[in-house]
Amino acid sequence: MSARLTVRETADFLRTLDNVLVLTHVRPDGDTVGCAAALCRALRDLGKTACMLPNPEITETYDPYAAPYWAPEGFAPDAVVSVDIAALNLLPDNAAQYRGSICLAIDHHGSQEFFAQRTCLDADAAACGEIVYEIVRELTPLTPDIALPLYVAVSTDCGCFVYANTTSRTHRIAAALMDCGIDAAPVNKALFRTKSSVRLAMEARMVSAMELYDSGRVVVMSIPLSLCSELHAAESDVEELSSLAALVQGTDCGITLRELKPGRVKLSLRTGPRVDASAVCSILGGGGHKGAAGATVDGTMDEARAAILAAYRKVVG
Amino acid sequence: MSARLTVRETADFLRTLDNVLVLTHVRPDGDTVGCAAALCRALRDLGKTACMLPNPEITETYDPYAAPYWAPEGFAPDAVVSVDIAALNLLPDNAAQYRGSICLAIDHHGSQEFFAQRTCLDADAAACGEIVYEIVRELTPLTPDIALPLYVAVSTDCGCFVYANTTSRTHRIAAALMDCGIDAAPVNKALFRTKSSVRLAMEARMVSAMELYDSGRVVVMSIPLSLCSELHAAESDVEELSSLAALVQGTDCGITLRELKPGRVKLSLRTGPRVDASAVCSILGGGGHKGAAGATVDGTMDEARAAILAAYRKVVG
Repeated sequence: MSARLTVRETADFLRTLDNVLVLTHVRPDGDTVGCAAALCRALRDLGKTACMLPNPEITETYDPYAAPYWAPEGFAPDAVVSVDIAALNLLPDNAAQYRGSICLAIDHHGSQEFFAQRTCLDADAAACGEIVYEIVRELTPLTPDIALPLYVAVSTDCGCFVYANTTSRTHRIAAALMDCGIDAAPVNKALFRTKSSVRLAMEARMVSAMELYDSGRVVVMSIPLSLCSELHAAESDVEELSSLAALVQGTDCGITLRELKPGRVKLSLRTGPRVDASAVCSILGGGGHKGAAGATVDGTMDEARAAILAAYRKVVG
Repeated sequence: MSARLTVRETADFLRTLDNVLVLTHVRPDGDTVGCAAALCRALRDLGKTACMLPNPEITETYDPYAAPYWAPEGFAPDAVVSVDIAALNLLPDNAAQYRGSICLAIDHHGSQEFFAQRTCLDADAAACGEIVYEIVRELTPLTPDIALPLYVAVSTDCGCFVYANTTSRTHRIAAALMDCGIDAAPVNKALFRTKSSVRLAMEARMVSAMELYDSGRVVVMSIPLSLCSELHAAESDVEELSSLAALVQGTDCGITLRELKPGRVKLSLRTGPRVDASAVCSILGGGGHKGAAGATVDGTMDEARAAILAAYRKVVG
């Protein structure tokens, strides 16, 4: 049984800790990394020792924010805290030893599984960064070293204030962080307004070859292996490309087919309220959320396209 | 000579007016339209008659916000106010009769030419909507009918809080507008997360034909008339396309050339801190902001490209 803590109780509890290890989730994003960095910085400002468990999947996008806080080899924590982690299966493999001893989970996922001894959960927060901001405000004065990773955390999870989870609270926290003297412009530019020439070319080719089905409500975009090799695409040029199909006006079911290797295709769906993406993908052995789901199937690109369209029609009826 | 007014003085002056006609600029965007709609609504809430001069170039993106306020035919104003208009040459043709009698200009462009009898200028505002928000707050309680067009105004000009002009003030105003009870999510989806098939095709073609100059730091994208006619592009498929060039990794000067008619080209610049876009464009008779500016020149696309590259090199040195 996990005790539920308020923001103030969480701050009070953190004050009692020292030698703190902060855990981030698999495929770390700006929210988990930014929260962990800000929390480490605030605890260090209080004179404590605090570090992040090295995350083997950190990308060069977020590594600069985490780098000052990676735990040295052999660091033996007295307390383990998780940020932005809804369930134990989202822990990186190197965190396995801490599964049973997480004393505090700070999170904003409605699917939180209360695996920690104490939980500070606010499922209305657009980002875990909003909660960590409020906790840190109770602990220590806001400095640019705290505010910058928190800005990364908050802005990442709301797509830079464009997603439907953005609230007035999100904007007010962004304002407070910016007033602290951070320069948000280069963060926004790097995270949200920069695309490699290769990625732009990939998108251009996907758009020029996109197909519409079912009276134009379904759009299918394809990433064949031949396109990736022709454009010399790195993995970072391809990640998140499935959001492109979700932009097409008049459609509410965006399907992206990515050929992983000959005979193996990853399917990604992004849907509006009419279509349950998870139900469609589960027919093909996949899953996910109502508005975003995926599956990986054997077959050619043509076979995968036929399979997902058949699954879609079965669900939509 | 134009008198400079503060926000409060502007509110006081507006209180003295009635039968107000509000002017928007050519190729109207969310900022000019949103400001005009909010100002009309606020003046009407004060019991006054206020309308917008019909803008012949309004697109279906912004028409819903303007529609309740279009002036009836034959409307004879006692006062004419402009919003988000830096210079008289940005007036639509049907506003020509008012050129000499604009009693108040509300604007946020550093290139403001002080053509009106009174000017409320704040060049630090990310959007003219920020200034109109502050003026309206002096005049009348904030209602959703005022807040929604103001949210459109503010969010449009900062690219939904991602551009470098976004400040803590921008975020605080967004928070206040959202707290008024508006639903920003559908606005964000429609303005920032939806693209027509034609627009996506335009972008794909612009990307595939983009050119790099000056060691790859300058990217030039082109929208020839032939591309628009081939793709049957509506004006709404073309608006704001100049932001595309600003995405290209490794560049910090994105130039977009749009052929308006044979022999006439609109140039748009989006630049990083190294390049003063307004200084570059002013060489060609245009203007704007440090990070976003434009000019319209006579000549072929090749001539326009040569002219803007020469202006760029003159400024960068």
